[in-house]
Amino acid sequence: MTEQSNRQLRLAQRPTGEPADEIWQFTTEDVPEPGDGEFVVAISHLSLDPAMRGWLDDRPSYLPPVGIGEVMRALGAGRVVASRHQDFPEGTHVTGTFGAQEFAVSDGRGVTRVDTGLAPLTTHLGALGMTGMTAYFGLFDVGAMADGETVVVSGAAGAVGSVVGQLAKIKGGRAIGIAGGPEKCAWLTEELGFDVAIDYKAEKVSRALREACPDGIDVYFDNVGGEILDAALARLRRGARVPICGGISQYNAEGRPTGPANYLNLIAARARMEGFLVFDYAARFPAAAAEMAGWIADGRLVSREHVVEGDLTAFPETFRMLFRGANTGKLVLQITEG
Amino acid sequence: MTEQSNRQLRLAQRPTGEPADEIWQFTTEDVPEPGDGEFVVAISHLSLDPAMRGWLDDRPSYLPPVGIGEVMRALGAGRVVASRHQDFPEGTHVTGTFGAQEFAVSDGRGVTRVDTGLAPLTTHLGALGMTGMTAYFGLFDVGAMADGETVVVSGAAGAVGSVVGQLAKIKGGRAIGIAGGPEKCAWLTEELGFDVAIDYKAEKVSRALREACPDGIDVYFDNVGGEILDAALARLRRGARVPICGGISQYNAEGRPTGPANYLNLIAARARMEGFLVFDYAARFPAAAAEMAGWIADGRLVSREHVVEGDLTAFPETFRMLFRGANTGKLVLQITEG
Repeated sequence: MTEQSNRQLRLAQRPTGEPADEIWQFTTEDVPEPGDGEFVVAISHLSLDPAMRGWLDDRPSYLPPVGIGEVMRALGAGRVVASRHQDFPEGTHVTGTFGAQEFAVSDGRGVTRVDTGLAPLTTHLGALGMTGMTAYFGLFDVGAMADGETVVVSGAAGAVGSVVGQLAKIKGGRAIGIAGGPEKCAWLTEELGFDVAIDYKAEKVSRALREACPDGIDVYFDNVGGEILDAALARLRRGARVPICGGISQYNAEGRPTGPANYLNLIAARARMEGFLVFDYAARFPAAAAEMAGWIADGRLVSREHVVEGDLTAFPETFRMLFRGANTGKLVLQITEG
Repeated sequence: MTEQSNRQLRLAQRPTGEPADEIWQFTTEDVPEPGDGEFVVAISHLSLDPAMRGWLDDRPSYLPPVGIGEVMRALGAGRVVASRHQDFPEGTHVTGTFGAQEFAVSDGRGVTRVDTGLAPLTTHLGALGMTGMTAYFGLFDVGAMADGETVVVSGAAGAVGSVVGQLAKIKGGRAIGIAGGPEKCAWLTEELGFDVAIDYKAEKVSRALREACPDGIDVYFDNVGGEILDAALARLRRGARVPICGGISQYNAEGRPTGPANYLNLIAARARMEGFLVFDYAARFPAAAAEMAGWIADGRLVSREHVVEGDLTAFPETFRMLFRGANTGKLVLQITEG
């Protein structure tokens, strides 16, 4: 192991708009040695998440911005290759915020041991990982979805959205997904069981929502912001909930983002828009993941990961796929054979 | 009574932007006679409310738009002058949605008998009326204010805002009001007991909020929307609540209103923005009004009504005062001696 080197992706400068190649720099260090109570993970897969875009901006948020010169913050999955920590022996598969690099040293805090017999490692970054947890707690807790309700989700072919719609179906509701392009829409209705898929590139979303939700929307799970959020706000049913965990259409906006012009519709609908961070539900992750794993085993929940095979140098281009709608399901960069 | 006529204000055309004189027409009818189970109210005071602007637009909302040619919908106060209804004998003082006219016939539904010994009739349109109820249920129920929390309210020298801040103080919190001009701000801090008043015409609201709320905002009661809403969203404390019942800066907007660009701040703050309509709390109005009346009697709650004396022809100009920040406290048009 000490023969190997650790390639790393670091933030060289802050982006304006869509993150260009120039904002990154690659460095190589020695693979770290674990200290007492530590272990080293060989990272095989990196999770690509819209939230990462926010971490690049120099403004206070729920996490500090990634500093210039720092290894890019990233969730990942891998295998323990050296250990002086009794709970994480060599060979353990783990997920955690290991950063955009090939090896990471950890003391175990925030690291999850995962069972690759239950589901492939990538699924532990998808439906059984933060992605799935975001869908689960966003829909059931923040969205307070009740049986039989009408759920609309944007970014429906994305990592979180594709799980939200399936969870709505599992709980006996109607699921309407908004996604871009006929392939994604066909996937939602034919493979995932959504009742309706709206192709925002081909249809006027406001009209399509009127047809798909004649009685209005009970839960609108927003992943995108912008015009689609506005269209949904105009169709809320009385007492509707709008959980928000991001707004990908706004992340690369230069200047001020565009707020939802229809926010005053919350009044007539007596509706609420509520932000949440999945980390707040960490104590309940194991139980939720166990429930989700059961649904996957039953075939009721499909976790699709869009795995790009490459190495760390593919990160900048793969990251941009998120903002171009180029992924279907959870976007993962495989950087080693794992 | 049959000698008298009933002057009425009707909607002649829908406004674009700020409602001009031309959108109204005045008509005169005979004073109605009460049928069995009905009574006639001589309306002495009309309530001028920002929500009325929304009723003029031809789009579905919580109430149907006022139709072209219809008497303008308006809350008012007056006295029963003829009655065939046992619960509303002649001489009873009442409030209700009587319309912008001098006389109204009613069967009593939605009409409240008021005690002018408890407070003047205008106060029953103010702190003891829908205005006060909006503040009470918006702050305590939708805003879920807890003891000692920091409450920020915009439109703080307006009808609802001035009550919100006082209720926050009564419940042991800090009250920060945002209003336009030094006189209004002085009134808030010197007469109403607000901790801080921010003059949005003279100060940068975002900076002033940073100074006034170093630990952030627990409840932001929004009456105005626009830039002030954005400034407040940027200062929310974790778990903050943002009750919204209107957004006066947007009501006369031509084209699309401006949504809150900072809405994504709800995420990091795990905060919610929630719309409400005071009518939903009608069953609890009597108890709330009794509590408010007690606070008025104690001197802990000041209800200020800005009474314009005129007649019905003063309605168009008085109504525009709302959108120009020309009123301090509850705006009321006195159309007869009462």
